[in-house]
Amino acid sequence: MSEPREAICLIAASEADSNLYYACRFLAPDPFVFFEVAGRKILLLSDLELDRGRSQARVDEVLSRSHYEDKARQRGTAKPTVIDSLAVVLNEYEVTDLAVPGNFGLEYADQLRERGYRVRTKPEPFFESRIRKTEEEIAHIEETQRHTEAALDAALAVLREADIRGDAVYWRGKVLTSEDLKKVINVTLMEHDCVAQHTIVACGLDGVDPHNQGSGPIRPHQSIVLDIFPRSGRTRYYSDMTRTVVKGRASDPLRRMYDAVLAAQLRGIEMVRAGVEGQEIHAEVARILERHGFETGLVGGRMQGFFHGTGHGLGLEVHEPPRVSKVAWVLHPGYVVTIEPGLYYPEWGAVRIEDLLVVEEHRCRNLTRFPKFLEL
Amino acid sequence: MSEPREAICLIAASEADSNLYYACRFLAPDPFVFFEVAGRKILLLSDLELDRGRSQARVDEVLSRSHYEDKARQRGTAKPTVIDSLAVVLNEYEVTDLAVPGNFGLEYADQLRERGYRVRTKPEPFFESRIRKTEEEIAHIEETQRHTEAALDAALAVLREADIRGDAVYWRGKVLTSEDLKKVINVTLMEHDCVAQHTIVACGLDGVDPHNQGSGPIRPHQSIVLDIFPRSGRTRYYSDMTRTVVKGRASDPLRRMYDAVLAAQLRGIEMVRAGVEGQEIHAEVARILERHGFETGLVGGRMQGFFHGTGHGLGLEVHEPPRVSKVAWVLHPGYVVTIEPGLYYPEWGAVRIEDLLVVEEHRCRNLTRFPKFLEL
Repeated sequence: MSEPREAICLIAASEADSNLYYACRFLAPDPFVFFEVAGRKILLLSDLELDRGRSQARVDEVLSRSHYEDKARQRGTAKPTVIDSLAVVLNEYEVTDLAVPGNFGLEYADQLRERGYRVRTKPEPFFESRIRKTEEEIAHIEETQRHTEAALDAALAVLREADIRGDAVYWRGKVLTSEDLKKVINVTLMEHDCVAQHTIVACGLDGVDPHNQGSGPIRPHQSIVLDIFPRSGRTRYYSDMTRTVVKGRASDPLRRMYDAVLAAQLRGIEMVRAGVEGQEIHAEVARILERHGFETGLVGGRMQGFFHGTGHGLGLEVHEPPRVSKVAWVLHPGYVVTIEPGLYYPEWGAVRIEDLLVVEEHRCRNLTRFPKFLEL
Repeated sequence: MSEPREAICLIAASEADSNLYYACRFLAPDPFVFFEVAGRKILLLSDLELDRGRSQARVDEVLSRSHYEDKARQRGTAKPTVIDSLAVVLNEYEVTDLAVPGNFGLEYADQLRERGYRVRTKPEPFFESRIRKTEEEIAHIEETQRHTEAALDAALAVLREADIRGDAVYWRGKVLTSEDLKKVINVTLMEHDCVAQHTIVACGLDGVDPHNQGSGPIRPHQSIVLDIFPRSGRTRYYSDMTRTVVKGRASDPLRRMYDAVLAAQLRGIEMVRAGVEGQEIHAEVARILERHGFETGLVGGRMQGFFHGTGHGLGLEVHEPPRVSKVAWVLHPGYVVTIEPGLYYPEWGAVRIEDLLVVEEHRCRNLTRFPKFLEL
């Protein structure tokens, strides 16, 4: 009997699985196999991907899946599946145990277990190093952020150019809508090879639901939350930024909400540095909003006030560890996090302000350059 | 002892899981629970999504996850996970067995099994009805296809406007590249709220690898494969189209390749109707290419000729069942499939032509209107 030997294993389409893309830096639309054993990274690819994999993937070896299908056939499997081929490879590497991510497909796992492999899930962050960004990764995020700011700039230029007439805003002779502003943002992003799946341009009551993307006419004198979080098609890295503006004049309560959120955000940013507990930042941000007189809680069955986390990590996903929230997370150098307090009241509107920070030893570096102002 | 009672269950982010979006028509970026028992569709949503879920989801009931977390706490679970809450719900519905898709996360499955649930994977197509498109779904696909054609039109307008100088193509004073054409395509798509993750504009040798997206200068007198497969941001439905063109004059072998692929494609389309075996279409397409003198096989370790499937289903994913390939699949009314033969030779270049068809009783309906021509 040989000793147990564990490999890390992922089977997915790297376009849809950031851990896999992180592990091998090879982008493919269809599922393929990655495993790592004794420090050696190996891909098992179909013939269609073999050449591209060998030239692009950052791994130690790229194996041909059809080669191992042939071997499986020689051993009596008439129609080898990807798991049959993988079993032949794992046998050659004397692997007995597999550590897989939580989202590993149950169908693959059950097939591997039937063949006698021990399969255990390893919790996120699956690759501990992914949370701490390299200089190369930070440069990618910052580049996406520059394009994000160009897109917001284009949208605000439209808002400035537009005219208020009664309770509507007109642009180039037509009623200006959330959809118009989103299109300006998304087209500007696409000109820089960035794709935003769900740009938020949420005016008035729409903005009071933080997940509402916004639709219909832009109203004057109401809050407009613009939250833009595209991925770069070239590097695969995201950025994320929110600004809140008013076309016209903000009401007094809205102006006070804005001032409170800005104060809380600036204090939150000030606290971001190596060794700080994300929980503490979140608690302090919530305290500042409360001290400004803005309370949080259920009113008529609906949450109002500040009822989401203060921030989240970002990289190959728009939301990834760490969290800056009620959950415990100590920040370390190289973490990239958002700080984005918000206030939401059906009566007055919504305000959220979000910057993107790199945690450094004694401070943080703000990747966001876009100015903060309310009225335009 | 009660009888076993099985529910269908999915836990995923519907933005990333088309089965889940298909099941409930509710789009969310974070994982949530769907289950269906005794013909009743139910969602379990966080407070943040509850209101939106109740107004948008096409289900029978939307339950509050925090309500069931409270119940789990009352039963002694200090920090209830999503599985703890789900277990309380399943208990109320007397569910003992779960049928889940193959990509169901192993972490969730193991937690459910530890609690005594029998969890089995059900193979794709998980929802049999998803393969047969409704009139509403076909209308969505066709709408995306119209935008895809507008985007190709914009790219070909650039190619027509461009000038050949020596072995380069110039547009607006600069060397025209694949990247330029992709930008024109992707920006045009974005203007119609469509997102193309991986537009292919592959000139010459780039096109000979069917998965190469293409890069660098466009060369005159060489094949340019343009393959565009965006998703509509509004409806979530894809389309897919390929054309091959030459800026300048095609060589004789390239012209013959084009004629062979076009003949094979037209014959393939002619065969698409209810009751036909996809395998037969694929075999006939391959036969026509061979009869035109184009052989398929390994040359110097690399596949050349026709070495991919003839077509695939399409809908909420760009690739979904059925296949029109070596694998057996009988076509039925309402299936939407591509027919896209291709030829790839390092010596001469690449040709692929792809249309999108709806299977009908005695014929098919072509959703693609874009003309087919080689030189411009």
